Amino acid sequence: MSSGRILVAQGGGPTAVINQSLAGVALEARRFRDVTRVYGARYGVRGIINEDFVDLTQETSQNLELVAATPSSALGSTRDKPDAAYCQEIYHVLRAHQIEHFFYIGGNDSSDTVRIVSEQARQAGYPLRCIHIPKTIDNDLVGNDHTPGFPSAARFVAQAFAGANLDNAALPGVYVGVVMGRHAGFLTAAAALGKKFPDDGPHLIYLPERTFVLDQFLADVKAVHARYGRCVVAVSEGIHDAAGTPIASLLAKEVERDAHGNVQLSGNGALADLLCEAIKAKLGIKRVRGDTFGYLQRSFIGCVSDVDQREAREVGEKAVQFAMWGGRCGSVAIKRTGFYSVDYELLELDAVAGKTRVMEDEFISASGTDVTDAFRLYLRPLLGAGMPDAFRLRAAPVAKVLKR
Amino acid sequence: MSSGRILVAQGGGPTAVINQSLAGVALEARRFRDVTRVYGARYGVRGIINEDFVDLTQETSQNLELVAATPSSALGSTRDKPDAAYCQEIYHVLRAHQIEHFFYIGGNDSSDTVRIVSEQARQAGYPLRCIHIPKTIDNDLVGNDHTPGFPSAARFVAQAFAGANLDNAALPGVYVGVVMGRHAGFLTAAAALGKKFPDDGPHLIYLPERTFVLDQFLADVKAVHARYGRCVVAVSEGIHDAAGTPIASLLAKEVERDAHGNVQLSGNGALADLLCEAIKAKLGIKRVRGDTFGYLQRSFIGCVSDVDQREAREVGEKAVQFAMWGGRCGSVAIKRTGFYSVDYELLELDAVAGKTRVMEDEFISASGTDVTDAFRLYLRPLLGAGMPDAFRLRAAPVAKVLKR
Repeated sequence: MSSGRILVAQGGGPTAVINQSLAGVALEARRFRDVTRVYGARYGVRGIINEDFVDLTQETSQNLELVAATPSSALGSTRDKPDAAYCQEIYHVLRAHQIEHFFYIGGNDSSDTVRIVSEQARQAGYPLRCIHIPKTIDNDLVGNDHTPGFPSAARFVAQAFAGANLDNAALPGVYVGVVMGRHAGFLTAAAALGKKFPDDGPHLIYLPERTFVLDQFLADVKAVHARYGRCVVAVSEGIHDAAGTPIASLLAKEVERDAHGNVQLSGNGALADLLCEAIKAKLGIKRVRGDTFGYLQRSFIGCVSDVDQREAREVGEKAVQFAMWGGRCGSVAIKRTGFYSVDYELLELDAVAGKTRVMEDEFISASGTDVTDAFRLYLRPLLGAGMPDAFRLRAAPVAKVLKR
Repeated sequence: MSSGRILVAQGGGPTAVINQSLAGVALEARRFRDVTRVYGARYGVRGIINEDFVDLTQETSQNLELVAATPSSALGSTRDKPDAAYCQEIYHVLRAHQIEHFFYIGGNDSSDTVRIVSEQARQAGYPLRCIHIPKTIDNDLVGNDHTPGFPSAARFVAQAFAGANLDNAALPGVYVGVVMGRHAGFLTAAAALGKKFPDDGPHLIYLPERTFVLDQFLADVKAVHARYGRCVVAVSEGIHDAAGTPIASLLAKEVERDAHGNVQLSGNGALADLLCEAIKAKLGIKRVRGDTFGYLQRSFIGCVSDVDQREAREVGEKAVQFAMWGGRCGSVAIKRTGFYSVDYELLELDAVAGKTRVMEDEFISASGTDVTDAFRLYLRPLLGAGMPDAFRLRAAPVAKVLKR
């Protein structure tokens, strides 16, 4: 006899739309007569271990809708990466609470957790349906056209660079913006969508999919600066040398800053600062400014793609439908079916779990410092409606009176 | 006989609405029959020296409206701070081009430039009307209730902290966000408007109007972290010790980083990084993240206050009206007349030029690390319509089965 209990949790870094998926699961599950309880685990898998559950069946649909439109993980999240023993513990708690369906909203690591828990339940002969619901601003899940959370973060990055370009045009110099994404450059590449006029920035984009060579970087910046009198650069936090060593730590050594020797990639401004200092020192350009977009790019409230919102909602709803009608375990994936339309499918957990997608070669220009039109075509519809636009004066010059 | 020529220029740091003021001047001036030409100087006063003018009379009103809605200075800006000789040069160029009205959109330094040029023209007996149009995200112009550009930047800061608070609640730890404002703390204080529920961050706000004491800061963070298990902090880039020395350089010494010895306040992440390292080292808290809002806070496209937009437009229009109907030199100022309504007045240039307003004591709480309700009442209407709102789950806890 069925307990009718399901559990949903959120893992990894928050996004602008991860609560849409949560609301999608909760509201859709509540429509099924067989479902008696919709539990939410607080702080991801850690909340499962700690039996820290809340009953979403007792939440109003009105408030679930309001929470859906609120960024960041409403249930709380965790950075825990469960090993087999941790997963065993998860399985035991789920079983103790007679959970029959487990929905975990997260990225690669989360999908691997779902895969292990699913396998353990199967081996024990306990009928647990495990569904992974995709979420990551890095867009690095294989088998997905794109992942919920990425479009809104990409929109933030595109808008940020559109603004930074205007600022840089008004007060010319070099501007370096460092964007999240350790292995996949999708989010950094989104900077290109902030560009409108041919001489707009970002003029150069450095992705983790390509080897970063400092001398080449400096030569690139010098050439753009010579041409336009200014230069806007988008840099992924994950740029590395041919051996895979992060540039942040290499540069730190070069400028003899031991204390920066082993820097974390996110949550500090080291990489931007070090690149700016290299430009100042080696190119002799005075006005050089660096920003690290940091947490703003994933949690800024009020910058969201409507396409991302509705898709994040749908992957949650579809997860429940796949579980209820299909009775299979798996990972929900977004499939592009037109320009622009999508559908959803349930992939095998093995096909997604623990794997990392990086930017396809067709999306990166031959120079390695720009994106292709294929990427623009890929990303533009994801950014959604109402993207702000930038306009310029085109006024006629006035003849000089005093000087020639 | 009148030449009918006017000149407008933009100075200092760009804002989200400075082009509204530009459009206000151009469109209003074009309505006057006596005005034959509306010139714009490219790159502020430097463009005047270089006779680098464009003819805004030949720009379409459609495009002027689109440019008005675009952030950053469409004419270009400058960081030049003219001395008497520089002003003399400005005056000579204006005279050579038979400019009769000079409108300069900018902050304190710009108002001082307008004052000197106006004085020089008067002494030379040349009939030049000089009007300063207020603009600064720092909100530090005396005689103004607030300055155009500040409300939109404040909105960005409030939204950024609302999001950072949600992110920090999902993945608890300490978050430090560094905000622009060297002498005046208004923009940093705007972080308080991102707070909704009583335990929301920012929990602590450090302003340049109060002396920063590192030990007290660490004690404050420790206390908040002990209470909520997390802590969100807003810090002004201008925080300093009792002697007025910037904390960035003090901390750099303390952690023995000579290369950071003499850091610039904006355009790098040094202060946030140093504060985060102090928290990690002295309080033993693991998850500590710092963001420096940098240029995003003044040039992000798509985050703007509608109140700011319309007021920035009006100070431009009023500047022309004061010049045409009043025939006086002066600085346009915003006066608050109700909750919420404003009117505009023309102040003497002497009353504004080169002076700096800081946050009034009534806006800062007794603790020195929060704002008062008077400040909330002051700022809220400026942020405009459609501020995003954050919602929480209020679901009932589920009883534990396994553990007690």
